[in-house]
Amino acid sequence: MKIGVFDSGFGGLTVLRALMDRIPEADYLYLGDTARLPYGAKSRATVARYAASSAKFLVSEGAEFLVIACNTASALALDEIRDAIPVPVLGVVETGANAADVNSTTRDVLVMATAATVESHAYAIACAGRNLRAIEKACPLLVPLVEEGWIDHPVTAEVLRIYLAELMEQAREAALTPDTLVLGCTHYPLLREQIERAVPQTLQVIDSAAVTAAQVDRRLAGAHNRAAAAGPTRFFATDSVAKFRTLGSRFLGRPIEAVDLVDLGS
Amino acid sequence: MKIGVFDSGFGGLTVLRALMDRIPEADYLYLGDTARLPYGAKSRATVARYAASSAKFLVSEGAEFLVIACNTASALALDEIRDAIPVPVLGVVETGANAADVNSTTRDVLVMATAATVESHAYAIACAGRNLRAIEKACPLLVPLVEEGWIDHPVTAEVLRIYLAELMEQAREAALTPDTLVLGCTHYPLLREQIERAVPQTLQVIDSAAVTAAQVDRRLAGAHNRAAAAGPTRFFATDSVAKFRTLGSRFLGRPIEAVDLVDLGS
Repeated sequence: MKIGVFDSGFGGLTVLRALMDRIPEADYLYLGDTARLPYGAKSRATVARYAASSAKFLVSEGAEFLVIACNTASALALDEIRDAIPVPVLGVVETGANAADVNSTTRDVLVMATAATVESHAYAIACAGRNLRAIEKACPLLVPLVEEGWIDHPVTAEVLRIYLAELMEQAREAALTPDTLVLGCTHYPLLREQIERAVPQTLQVIDSAAVTAAQVDRRLAGAHNRAAAAGPTRFFATDSVAKFRTLGSRFLGRPIEAVDLVDLGS
Repeated sequence: MKIGVFDSGFGGLTVLRALMDRIPEADYLYLGDTARLPYGAKSRATVARYAASSAKFLVSEGAEFLVIACNTASALALDEIRDAIPVPVLGVVETGANAADVNSTTRDVLVMATAATVESHAYAIACAGRNLRAIEKACPLLVPLVEEGWIDHPVTAEVLRIYLAELMEQAREAALTPDTLVLGCTHYPLLREQIERAVPQTLQVIDSAAVTAAQVDRRLAGAHNRAAAAGPTRFFATDSVAKFRTLGSRFLGRPIEAVDLVDLGS
């Protein structure tokens, strides 16, 4: 089984890492559309066009199952991606909402995400469809803090304290009693421990990388070709191959040897 | 005189603001290539193509003088822009280096900029051409802190303290005695007071927006059509008009009423 993982950048490598840990017998292709990132600032039509062309590329390289590890593309373009390619597609917004659905007793959920994801209200909509109320909080400093490498750092601890206090205050104002916190950005799994330390123990933290891997695992449980002869994982980027290798290795938790530069037009 | 100001986003509005304060009798056109930002992650060829098409657009709208308020485009594509259009072009890297040249007695200069600008070594190269030694420091958290609106904020003060301490340490290791600090990013003028409070009094802070406006003023001192009948400033963006208006007004220091969406292809 060849699984394609798509993100606008290298954040989705946290999802690939969780998949490789969970389903080591599969083959993987990863595409980071680094030339056209960030998708978050772009219109729905543009994101849909970029995401569909990226998905088609992964299928042309042999992907038989596609994971959309990009929150913006999952939020804005999942239907367009499904229409563009003939293989099953799973997006991180739905897998995060699925996990919240299973976990939450109070039916009240908190979501931390980028400004673009929050503006799309993708998690609130996905949660509402599962009879969950959600409060979403834009946390725009967390991605640059992770990319700066300030993981165990007092500045990051203070930023998390401020964001979480604001989020809890929003929940109080809305009279919600949340028991679940969804990390709605592929960079945030690197801050999972710091976030778990900063929230009350009554709050279960849902790491979208881990729950996505678990749901792909279940979806492929009966697939006849699940364990193909596993080849090396292949990495593709549309620009900035050097940065992809350097920063990407931190996200993947192992070295990235080779990245192929591909041109998907613009 | 119609002056065109170009940036990949809205950071360049700090330069436009300085220009409008300094040369109120001119007309202004501003283009933020928001659909294709950030330029910093892209290759030189891509940046040159985007910047040249943006410059041509401003000239087609009547610009008679062009200010490149985008550090990445100034660093990577100034020659290509000059080749693409028939009007004079001034870029923020050269105006920052010019101001450092005039200010510095010790001939040692510090530069704070984004990761992409530092990787290009544009300031170090421009400084070397003026017989100045420069130490460049990437400060990737400052743009998101400014965009979060955390200007007078303890987290920003702490991040500045850390970045400036690292920069001073780099200067000590290189046995430099800097007397000038260049703010090499159009977002940083919003942090100018905070930065001035955090550095020794022996260090003169060069705000690239202010010095760019001063140098445009001098270049246009004798222009016969300097004071045309001033019309309203026109704003163009290639995407995200709403975000441009909201965030842009903070950078410009006055409300932005109308932004025209333009399609420059991709």
